[in-house]
Amino acid sequence: MEKIPSRERMIEMKTAPPEYQDLTDRMAEIRNLSKLAALAHWDMQCNMPSAGAEARKEQLVTLTGLIHRHMTAPHIGDLLHRLRSFQDSLPHASDEAATLRTVAREYEKATRIPESLARERVTASSEGLQAWLRARETRDFSRFLPALERNFDMSLRIAEALNPSSPPLDVLIDQREPGFDVEGVESVFSDLKEVLIPLILRVAEKPDAVDDAVLRQHYDPDTQWELTLKAVRDIGFDLQQRGRQDISVHPFTTSFSIDDVRITTRIRANEFSAAFFASLHEAGHGTYEQGFPKEWERSILATSASGGMHESQSRLWENIVGRSPEFWEFFYPEVQRHFPEQTEGTSHGDFYRAVNRIQPSFIRVEADEVTYNLHIIIRFELEKAAFEGELSLEDMPEAWNEKYEKYLGITPEDPVEGVLQDIHWSGGFGSSFISYTLGNVISAQLFGAALREHPDMKEKFRQGDFSRLLSWMQQNVHAHGQKFPPRELVRQATGEEFNTGPFLDYIKSKTETLYGP
Amino acid sequence: MEKIPSRERMIEMKTAPPEYQDLTDRMAEIRNLSKLAALAHWDMQCNMPSAGAEARKEQLVTLTGLIHRHMTAPHIGDLLHRLRSFQDSLPHASDEAATLRTVAREYEKATRIPESLARERVTASSEGLQAWLRARETRDFSRFLPALERNFDMSLRIAEALNPSSPPLDVLIDQREPGFDVEGVESVFSDLKEVLIPLILRVAEKPDAVDDAVLRQHYDPDTQWELTLKAVRDIGFDLQQRGRQDISVHPFTTSFSIDDVRITTRIRANEFSAAFFASLHEAGHGTYEQGFPKEWERSILATSASGGMHESQSRLWENIVGRSPEFWEFFYPEVQRHFPEQTEGTSHGDFYRAVNRIQPSFIRVEADEVTYNLHIIIRFELEKAAFEGELSLEDMPEAWNEKYEKYLGITPEDPVEGVLQDIHWSGGFGSSFISYTLGNVISAQLFGAALREHPDMKEKFRQGDFSRLLSWMQQNVHAHGQKFPPRELVRQATGEEFNTGPFLDYIKSKTETLYGP
Repeated sequence: MEKIPSRERMIEMKTAPPEYQDLTDRMAEIRNLSKLAALAHWDMQCNMPSAGAEARKEQLVTLTGLIHRHMTAPHIGDLLHRLRSFQDSLPHASDEAATLRTVAREYEKATRIPESLARERVTASSEGLQAWLRARETRDFSRFLPALERNFDMSLRIAEALNPSSPPLDVLIDQREPGFDVEGVESVFSDLKEVLIPLILRVAEKPDAVDDAVLRQHYDPDTQWELTLKAVRDIGFDLQQRGRQDISVHPFTTSFSIDDVRITTRIRANEFSAAFFASLHEAGHGTYEQGFPKEWERSILATSASGGMHESQSRLWENIVGRSPEFWEFFYPEVQRHFPEQTEGTSHGDFYRAVNRIQPSFIRVEADEVTYNLHIIIRFELEKAAFEGELSLEDMPEAWNEKYEKYLGITPEDPVEGVLQDIHWSGGFGSSFISYTLGNVISAQLFGAALREHPDMKEKFRQGDFSRLLSWMQQNVHAHGQKFPPRELVRQATGEEFNTGPFLDYIKSKTETLYGP
Repeated sequence: MEKIPSRERMIEMKTAPPEYQDLTDRMAEIRNLSKLAALAHWDMQCNMPSAGAEARKEQLVTLTGLIHRHMTAPHIGDLLHRLRSFQDSLPHASDEAATLRTVAREYEKATRIPESLARERVTASSEGLQAWLRARETRDFSRFLPALERNFDMSLRIAEALNPSSPPLDVLIDQREPGFDVEGVESVFSDLKEVLIPLILRVAEKPDAVDDAVLRQHYDPDTQWELTLKAVRDIGFDLQQRGRQDISVHPFTTSFSIDDVRITTRIRANEFSAAFFASLHEAGHGTYEQGFPKEWERSILATSASGGMHESQSRLWENIVGRSPEFWEFFYPEVQRHFPEQTEGTSHGDFYRAVNRIQPSFIRVEADEVTYNLHIIIRFELEKAAFEGELSLEDMPEAWNEKYEKYLGITPEDPVEGVLQDIHWSGGFGSSFISYTLGNVISAQLFGAALREHPDMKEKFRQGDFSRLLSWMQQNVHAHGQKFPPRELVRQATGEEFNTGPFLDYIKSKTETLYGP
């Protein structure tokens, strides 16, 4: 198995020309501004009083325009040009070579997008969020439609600007998941459907094999909050000095520094899983953001290799760890301590089974590991149909419901449980969901590789020791930031090509354990 | 009494040249960036995990540098130049004339300060904060001294850059309190000392005339928090849609929009006053920030006329209202409801007297209305001695203690109760404290004028109706932002020149009521 040379063994670049310093200083300034934009977004979702939205939008438009202007400054192009021969002299895997490749790619991308379009996108996405919130309140898709159309139009214009010679969805996918296109995504989804659909049908014949009533009781929100903090700390997200958790309508993760990572969760009083698994999910993202090498604080490399790679970390901790029997052997006594009444008469095995119940449902973020991917496939097929002109956005609610009937055998009656459930389309349209499923696929590959290196890893989970897995991820994934494209990173970390095998094996084996062969 | 024409009667500027729009657009962008810097500061004090400080400092340095570069762009100078004849054609009191005056002043100021100095100041103040926190932890002034010296040096360089021909402290005072200089401040302080010092000596002869033991009991922090929210809402700060309150080590107010104003407080479990009066104080500031005309959201005018004018609003609600018998007649039943045990056997009159007890003490923010001003005078005299070369900063702790002995008859034994108590010198040195006393003076003038217009105002306080006072402030102070210099604003709002008479009358009368003639 080919290994990436450790950072210590990298060639030291004593001879970097002054232009290199100039370029990285400029990138650090842009990074600083971007982190402030992230703070403005975080605050908007966690703290901002409602009337502050209008001014905040203006502030973000100004800052985004400025970041864009800095990123497209002709001086950046000059520096890159003058650094060409330096770049050619560098080993491919060196930080400096990766930095120059990344800056060149981002510069190229930014210069293709006019500043007015970059600013307009921020406006569209801020206004889209407000429209989506209003549409949800009134349970009326038509109130969201104009914003959706605008976001769709924005996506088309961005794709066209970035690469007028490729189909727009291919361009958008490549932005988010370098190395993938519509065909590549469809091939993954086709593998998945082949296994998952028969599996769901088989499970549907045994609706009572797993009972999850224990999860649907009153769970005191403050106590839930304490429990999420405990779990998040246990898996190794640093809540003490380098991170924090807050409440928001839609859980998310952001960071303002490698040493300042913010996760959020949401709590439902009558449901155990919502907060708990949202926290584990976001803490998984959080470990990635906290895991970049400290010396990269100012570097463009300190970001995830792709959306899918980021989701591989969240879905890993949410599911492969957080829904494993070993995790619950360790953690269930905590739940019992916090909720003695609710857990009375429920064994840790029962609880483990409950959090793994497989059942078609309306809400993606609450779906089990098997049906989850069908939620993603549905969204992708709808996006693709829209981009190919086969689906008009105004028909989206009907198309949505048809797909749910077709793939999951259920039809949402309320748009809040259907087409209006996700925040994503309020901020943009196209390619945003596929990362979750790619993340599921990658998480199983990474977990397998970590397990090969630490065969006692799961055993340690039983004692609440997750350090082997976290260290392995830090060394093999986090430490590389966006230095390598995702497929290359997967290959180097696991010794195998990106493939759906390990994920499907994992799903099949788990389903058999829970529902019999 | 000359009145400022109401905004509706202002001449409508249908004929503003395109340069005017260009200029105000640029100012709006700078304002947007400044509000994001304010957000970064707020977050630093309210939420940021400790390890995030280093990156946050870098982000603020970048943003401050950028704001400075935008503010000093030669194009701004060109626009101002080209708008000269337009400006001459405008009525003095019009928004447009005030905008052009203000932009010209800020541009002039900014161009005198090199960007490197503007950035260095941010670094010095961020690092100063960390040094101050460490010095407090170890109760060791020497750990803070280098930061203090650096801030002092920074102040000298800034004053020199702004106006090399005036003494530095005069320059710094004029920045914060336009229309004041060392002599003007000393004349105010001399008036105050003449009345306050004999008054403090007289009160000292009756140490048991007022009992405040009721305030020093265990008050549950969560219940205190609820009570502060109630009080803040009652006086008219909009916590619902346009503001919020958080916890920070040092209470402060900031705003990211006229519709997004943030106040903070701090809670002590064994003390009633700390949180309560901090909240009232900051809510007073908050009403100012929420009170600018909505159509000024993008305008450079939507800020306070001076530091002292801002403090006039905070000290008004904290003291003239918040320590009035009428307020406590209304609010004491709330305290009783929230804290039945602690208030048992204490009448509303007793409680009113307790929160007004006059007694020399170490901590400025906890001082009564009479001794408070001596805390300010001490700081000002120390700053002045440093600027005049008569006091070396390393001797500050001894000089501090001597002044406390001289003016208040007490000597702090611990630097945390002495020279290290305030956050201000961690972020800069010179002129920052005088605003509080100028604010006290102005608050009494404004209150007097409001009372002349609404003779039933205090009567209404008894029923919890503070709307007359708030409206009066909105119309006569807030509505004008920084359109007029503070002395002019005071004159127009009250019909009298800035003077210490009303404040001293207020203090004398209150002291007599509490302690007898």
